[in-house]
Order: sequence, then structure tokens, then C-alpha cells
Amino acid sequence: MSDLGEKRIKTKRLYKGTLIGLRRDTVELPNGKTSTREIVEHPGAVAVVAITKEDELVLIRQFRTPTKEILLEVPAGVPKKGEAGEVCAARELQEETGFHAKKVKKVWEGFASPGYSDELIRFYLAQDMVKIKQNLDEDEFVEVNLIDVETCMDLLKLGKIRDNKTMIGIMIADLYLKGELK
Amino acid sequence: MSDLGEKRIKTKRLYKGTLIGLRRDTVELPNGKTSTREIVEHPGAVAVVAITKEDELVLIRQFRTPTKEILLEVPAGVPKKGEAGEVCAARELQEETGFHAKKVKKVWEGFASPGYSDELIRFYLAQDMVKIKQNLDEDEFVEVNLIDVETCMDLLKLGKIRDNKTMIGIMIADLYLKGELK
Repeated sequence: MSDLGEKRIKTKRLYKGTLIGLRRDTVELPNGKTSTREIVEHPGAVAVVAITKEDELVLIRQFRTPTKEILLEVPAGVPKKGEAGEVCAARELQEETGFHAKKVKKVWEGFASPGYSDELIRFYLAQDMVKIKQNLDEDEFVEVNLIDVETCMDLLKLGKIRDNKTMIGIMIADLYLKGELK
Repeated sequence: MSDLGEKRIKTKRLYKGTLIGLRRDTVELPNGKTSTREIVEHPGAVAVVAITKEDELVLIRQFRTPTKEILLEVPAGVPKKGEAGEVCAARELQEETGFHAKKVKKVWEGFASPGYSDELIRFYLAQDMVKIKQNLDEDEFVEVNLIDVETCMDLLKLGKIRDNKTMIGIMIADLYLKGELK
């Protein structure tokens, strides 16, 4: 498989913003030719699969500027500098939904769009929750929805879930409740 | 839920590249304050869940410049201008893996990373395949892997799948073979 690799021979900074950056790499391909790749740089994110004692998934509805629609999503966010994934997952869950989880554990991680972005999303399972209070960022407006996992799976199968990390979060919840998560 | 919306009041073009673009929007929030959002513009992609008669999933391994690692993925690509999703899915499958599918059907669609990108990935189920020949783009280097869906599910449960659209593709294949896809 070593003949699948690429070697970076040049890089050009195109943008450096508050959350994301953008650069253009020139790479040498396995056949010796060169090509260019536009790459979005992202610090990575966490997504939280929070399951209540009643087997409900804690979801939020929020308007997303890029997609121009309100999406039903698992809570998610970007770690602060130096913040551990578990800590970030628990913090984002509490800020966005008001649920404080005593148990937070990483399950999977995957790239959101590896063709042009380095964003890695780490998925955390959150349990043993108590309801405290929502504490949103000043520019966040979200509505909390508790939906039982079985209904979530039905919504998924019907194609009603329009966010990839949420499709995966529902799958994690379903496998977990069936005792099939390894 | 109307109080979740945002109104765009300004937009600034930051970059326009061959595949992606970047802009910064200034938006008015539900509370009347303003905020800025960095937005990656992407034409959207298709991902192909191709299942052989032997219940194997057609997967590819490829090096991804942004992630700096070789990933196991479902075939995917970006439609040409005006190309229908079904046509694109069949074309990408054939180019990348050599499989020609007689039956291609859209199942789900989801945003890859709605916090900063408008990329929508449409998932297609491909069946009734015959093997013709791979026909890669000049800058594509991929290795085709046929892995039975049950083994794919095991890899997924073990956290070995590191690409979000591929996690979803495996889930689609598993639900389809169990007759649970609606």
C-alpha cells in the first residue's frame, strides 16, 4: 500500500481565520507527477451521544448558516486550547442542553470530509446525567429535544436525519442499547 | 422554531478555488446582535454503497492529503456540472473500482460538517453490478477492497472506520441486507 502515498513539495497559505484555515498544497503523486490540493484546516470537533435513563437521545435543533436550514443534531463543539476531549464533550453537552453527565467515554472517531478537510470528529457516549441548566454561548440559539432512540432510528431509516455526525450518533446509541458496541 | 433563524446582513468573498470557496458572512442573530461565520462552499458530493451479490461492500483505500493517512472509504466524488446524482454515483463507482452498476438509487443525504461547510453528501445504493475496468483520474491512486458487510460492521463497532461517510455507508448496507431500510 506504500504506493498510495503523496509527498508535499510546496504549500501556500490562503487564509487564517478564527476557526478555520485554508492552504493549497502541491504534492508529488506516486507516478512522479504533481497535483494541487485545497485543504481546509480545522482544529477537530467532539460530538456527544447522550442517552438518558429512559433511553432517549439528547438532541438539539439549531439553524446553521452554511446550510440555511434548521438541523436536528447531536450536541457538538470544538475543544478549547489544551482541553481534553472528554472534558469538552461534557462541557458542550451541559452548555447546549443543560445535562451534566457523570460518565463520558470516547467510542469512535472519523474524518468529516477527508477529500478537502482535516477535521476529525470524535464521538463520545455520555451517561448518568442530571439536568442542571443550559448555558449557551452568546451567539448560540438551540432548542433541546429528547427523542427515544427507537424513534431516532426510524427517523434515520426514513432519511429524515440530515447531518452526518447525527446519523452516526444515532447508530452508536442504537448499538449501545443493543449491547453491540465493542 | 422561527426564533432560531439568522439573517445575513453582509458577505465577504475570501477565496474562490477549483473545488471549494470560502466566504465570511455577518449575520443578525435572533436577539438582534450580530456575529460572523466563516463558510466553506462546496458543490456537494455523492457516496456509493455498492453491494455485490455475495453481500460484500465495495470499498477503496486511498491516501488523503488533508488527513495524512490512508483511509478505507466507500467510493465517492463530486458531480460534474449538470450531472444527475445517480449518473455521478455510477460513474464514480466505475472509475474508482471498475464495477458497473445497473441499479443505482438514492437513500439518504446529510451535511458533512454543517458548522462551517455547506457540503451535502448524497448516499446512493448500487446493485446488479458487473466488473468492467477501473478508469481512474490521472491524480487518483486507489486500491479496491471487497469486504463482506458483516465484517464491515465488526470493523465499525471496533472503531476501525475513520471516515464518517463510510460509517454511514456501512450502516446503510447493513440495514439494507436486514430488510430494514425504508
